[in-house]
Amino acid sequence: MEIISSLDNKKIKNYSKLLQKKYRDLDNLFIVEGEHLVKEAYASNVLKEVIMCEDYNLNLNVPTTYVTYDVIKKLSNTLNPQKIMGICYKLKTKEIGDKVLILDDIQDPGNLGTIIRSSVAFNIDTIILSNNTVDLYNDKVIRASEGMLFKINILRDDIVNVINHLKANNYSIYGTKVDGGKDISTIKPSSKYALVMGNEGAGVKDEILNLCDEYLYIPMNSECESLNVGVATSIILYSLNK
Amino acid sequence: MEIISSLDNKKIKNYSKLLQKKYRDLDNLFIVEGEHLVKEAYASNVLKEVIMCEDYNLNLNVPTTYVTYDVIKKLSNTLNPQKIMGICYKLKTKEIGDKVLILDDIQDPGNLGTIIRSSVAFNIDTIILSNNTVDLYNDKVIRASEGMLFKINILRDDIVNVINHLKANNYSIYGTKVDGGKDISTIKPSSKYALVMGNEGAGVKDEILNLCDEYLYIPMNSECESLNVGVATSIILYSLNK
Repeated sequence: MEIISSLDNKKIKNYSKLLQKKYRDLDNLFIVEGEHLVKEAYASNVLKEVIMCEDYNLNLNVPTTYVTYDVIKKLSNTLNPQKIMGICYKLKTKEIGDKVLILDDIQDPGNLGTIIRSSVAFNIDTIILSNNTVDLYNDKVIRASEGMLFKINILRDDIVNVINHLKANNYSIYGTKVDGGKDISTIKPSSKYALVMGNEGAGVKDEILNLCDEYLYIPMNSECESLNVGVATSIILYSLNK
Repeated sequence: MEIISSLDNKKIKNYSKLLQKKYRDLDNLFIVEGEHLVKEAYASNVLKEVIMCEDYNLNLNVPTTYVTYDVIKKLSNTLNPQKIMGICYKLKTKEIGDKVLILDDIQDPGNLGTIIRSSVAFNIDTIILSNNTVDLYNDKVIRASEGMLFKINILRDDIVNVINHLKANNYSIYGTKVDGGKDISTIKPSSKYALVMGNEGAGVKDEILNLCDEYLYIPMNSECESLNVGVATSIILYSLNK
């Protein structure tokens, strides 16, 4: 059994570049860390190769490369990575479903990951990321999603175009607005809808808010100006799913 | 006007130690960053001193020390800190209120900050942190709380003792459990209650779960095993507050 220990090994050097978005886009690949995510990738038929420490015990029907722990570290942004990594093909996208979440420039990878996780929990079938939303394949997004990115259809597109397309196809478009919005608990969602949620600091852009058919709000104590966007999105999705 | 530029200045050296929990506990002080938090600290009567760049314009009735941006950086864990910091006295605690959230060993500072923010939004009046929960005055907790830590009563204690005390005082104690729990939307909360939420990986300890009077769950798609603990806590608090 060959064990790669050199950090200058060509394959390892190439894979380590996948920590940068530029190379993920170029090679159409991304990295996942840990057995749970490697197995989820395998179940989703996107696992190209396993990279693991020589003493790690997992047998999947894909090419496996054995390495030292120092080599594993070169493939991770965490200080103490798990001893197994997967190299994955980027996920294929499907047609837009009936229950859609549109994200307007979410910047924090932890927030995006959390939102993906909650979207699966509350039966969203498609997430549309605006072109300026953080990269889906950022390692922190993947970690925070707890593997749920493999269980949902996620597209990246110009969201103004997407919203206009959805409106033409009889989707209700929901935005959020504190003044003049409707309490989320009073909404009976349409059979086809899209919820638009916005950037951490700036919220949803006016241009996009103006395209919405209905505005929702979460009733809360006025001492608190706003919720974390991952939390706000999750509460609305929970409520729409009831 | 004296402007401190030396990173070896005694006062600055001492304040920079407040980035470590040990010194926050020793001096009973903590640091906040940015005008919003400095003003919240001032409004809460805990602002001891302002440290700001010479070109920053803010006038509060507390001692102010002018410094260079390099000195500001020494007081922050962020790469590009804001140009104003506040040195604050740790918050005074009050009696336990009627709507209580108990946190069993939350480890991630972002999660704790988010939970504090949502607790204010949904009218919790007291949060009890278990002794092993991440430090309330950790800079990431303060940032994620968006200043809401100044608007709520937060204690740290042995939570088994606290729960027994609350039970003796007729509080209902709610835990979470997927099997055999009640759908959160069916719960009419008691006038006095405490919700117990647990650690990111391990959940609530059995010993503590056994003390609960009632178990709640959030209905969700079985593809998703669990929600982020900040999200789950926020959804339950939202629901109990309705």
